[in-house]
Amino acid sequence: MELYSPDRLAAARRAAAEAGLDALLIGPSADLQYLTGYDAHALERLTLLVLPADGEATLIVPRLERPAAEASPAESIGVRLVDHADGTDPYHIVQELLAGRAKTVGLGNRMWAEQVLALRDALPETGQALAGAVLRGLRLRKSPAEIEALRRAGQAIDAVHERMGEWLRPGRTEAEVAADIAAAIREAGHATVEFTIVAAGPNGASPHHGVSDRVIAPGEPVVVDIGGRMPDGYCSDSTRTYCIGEPPADFAAYYAVLHEAQRAAVAAVRPGVSAEAVDAAARDLIAGAGYGERFLHRTGHGIGLDGHEDPYIVAGNDAPLEPGMAFSVEPGIYLAGRHGARIEDIVVCTADGVERLNTIDTELVIL
Amino acid sequence: MELYSPDRLAAARRAAAEAGLDALLIGPSADLQYLTGYDAHALERLTLLVLPADGEATLIVPRLERPAAEASPAESIGVRLVDHADGTDPYHIVQELLAGRAKTVGLGNRMWAEQVLALRDALPETGQALAGAVLRGLRLRKSPAEIEALRRAGQAIDAVHERMGEWLRPGRTEAEVAADIAAAIREAGHATVEFTIVAAGPNGASPHHGVSDRVIAPGEPVVVDIGGRMPDGYCSDSTRTYCIGEPPADFAAYYAVLHEAQRAAVAAVRPGVSAEAVDAAARDLIAGAGYGERFLHRTGHGIGLDGHEDPYIVAGNDAPLEPGMAFSVEPGIYLAGRHGARIEDIVVCTADGVERLNTIDTELVIL
Repeated sequence: MELYSPDRLAAARRAAAEAGLDALLIGPSADLQYLTGYDAHALERLTLLVLPADGEATLIVPRLERPAAEASPAESIGVRLVDHADGTDPYHIVQELLAGRAKTVGLGNRMWAEQVLALRDALPETGQALAGAVLRGLRLRKSPAEIEALRRAGQAIDAVHERMGEWLRPGRTEAEVAADIAAAIREAGHATVEFTIVAAGPNGASPHHGVSDRVIAPGEPVVVDIGGRMPDGYCSDSTRTYCIGEPPADFAAYYAVLHEAQRAAVAAVRPGVSAEAVDAAARDLIAGAGYGERFLHRTGHGIGLDGHEDPYIVAGNDAPLEPGMAFSVEPGIYLAGRHGARIEDIVVCTADGVERLNTIDTELVIL
Repeated sequence: MELYSPDRLAAARRAAAEAGLDALLIGPSADLQYLTGYDAHALERLTLLVLPADGEATLIVPRLERPAAEASPAESIGVRLVDHADGTDPYHIVQELLAGRAKTVGLGNRMWAEQVLALRDALPETGQALAGAVLRGLRLRKSPAEIEALRRAGQAIDAVHERMGEWLRPGRTEAEVAADIAAAIREAGHATVEFTIVAAGPNGASPHHGVSDRVIAPGEPVVVDIGGRMPDGYCSDSTRTYCIGEPPADFAAYYAVLHEAQRAAVAAVRPGVSAEAVDAAARDLIAGAGYGERFLHRTGHGIGLDGHEDPYIVAGNDAPLEPGMAFSVEPGIYLAGRHGARIEDIVVCTADGVERLNTIDTELVIL
């Protein structure tokens, strides 16, 4: 199963034409990697895929990035490379390709403002919309090869969680534990470490706490939310909550609620069910137990070449799930000043239900 | 010496007003960290500093990021926090703050296109320019506290290079060596690993090669370009070229040229000299020795909270250097298909000359 093929470019051209876009302009991003296989650095130097709805695909690259672009699948799937030297204006190349021929272009959603405004100046007669509206529909449903890539990523991060007892001990700081986890994320096969949240005691009540020099104490719950990118670009993301010795009674009470809520949300996943219904499956249980105000965030986010992408599992998203959609299910309960807990699995919607790509247990782990 | 203070906000307000901008709109980026001390995640959820030229500074944050924003220096320097919940539209907050009151706003240069276009829709009567034109002038000259931060970063990455003999051995892959380097970058005091280029033999001829599974062979030159971010946000970046045993004769010949060129460019740095003159100091020597076409890139880039920022040391940049400007001096020579070499130090322009922030030797290291 090949991850990259000309099919993705062809599908993007068709979708752009249907959306009334004459070309897609895509800088370094998961969109670029999805379309061409090229994992480019986001730099002040312009890297830009110009993909006309009807015409040759051109990848503009800084000259010193040319060998990297040549080593990617881009040329093999029919993308022409054009390079520019330091100190020359690369926007002239875009003008030559598109001036007078593009009424509206779709810009990659994560293109930098300095490029958005430079493109507006280079193509003053051309309207700008977002390419995301077009590419989202393609990236939303993962192919079998992509699901296999996400399964490998899930197994790799599971292997790190299974080793947590080696590192998570009273007297060590969050930062020390995170450094060990980072090394293990690489050892487990990831190419890069994307985040290592180790949130002990009251830090666990801040959902996006990173790490600190807080020394972990006996009896403290610790939220560990970790992820990386595999060499093929696909991401892992998994959270487990640990306790160093017996947990406080109030914590044990709400962990049981959270555990049930996370399982209920996973079980709710199947084709035709809305994203918001999966959110509600977790939220209603948590609210029913009196913790509704303590669940501060949505239930999940899509995952693929980006760590966060569509579909978002959130109230208001009434789009039905479809086979191939992959996303996190990660409810949390947070008691400010005390402690918090979160349980997160990546799951994929299958033809008739759900597959968990993180397969380790979700019970509280007492170390 | 404090890194963050209300002075930066005040200076940004003054510079915005002088540039005819009614407000600066800054998302997660080094610009935001520079102004407020808040190192925010770049997410699909909106985080945005609204800094009117004349009025209160407001930082719009996702509700679940509020604790992280509260833990930053932002509020202590006079920034008001406003949060928004998942599923609500945060652009209404921007409208309430600015609609009818801003003719032109300056957008952070690295703001994502999806936010640029959402702000255009939210403020249809407001023109958009780049904030970089305003903030560049502030960030370009480092304060004594910033230079001290960059000095610490330089010492930390120097300590990693000094240990290279522990890891760089024939029979190991580039990726294995890079993993050891990554662990050492953290051990040396960095908060994150930003890049670990280990480019052996012909891979060294691609300036931005990352790592691969290539097994390092005896007699091969290896370019090692590494950097990270310190806990205070400031970046390190240093390149040395190593050889496993005696180098090939053609390599030794051009390494001597490169070594002289890099020293000449460093020695050229002093107030009033143009950035392009520093580039020329290296380039003229390399071209004079017949390798002009083999030096594929500019001589350097500024460094601070971003790994690459102004000033760029490149032909065409005739701006004079000023005390406090910090940048890399990193000429390279690349023989496609054979091998390559690069030497990189971070330097700072002082009142009467130059200080190298990487202080280890630049001779070829034979391991």
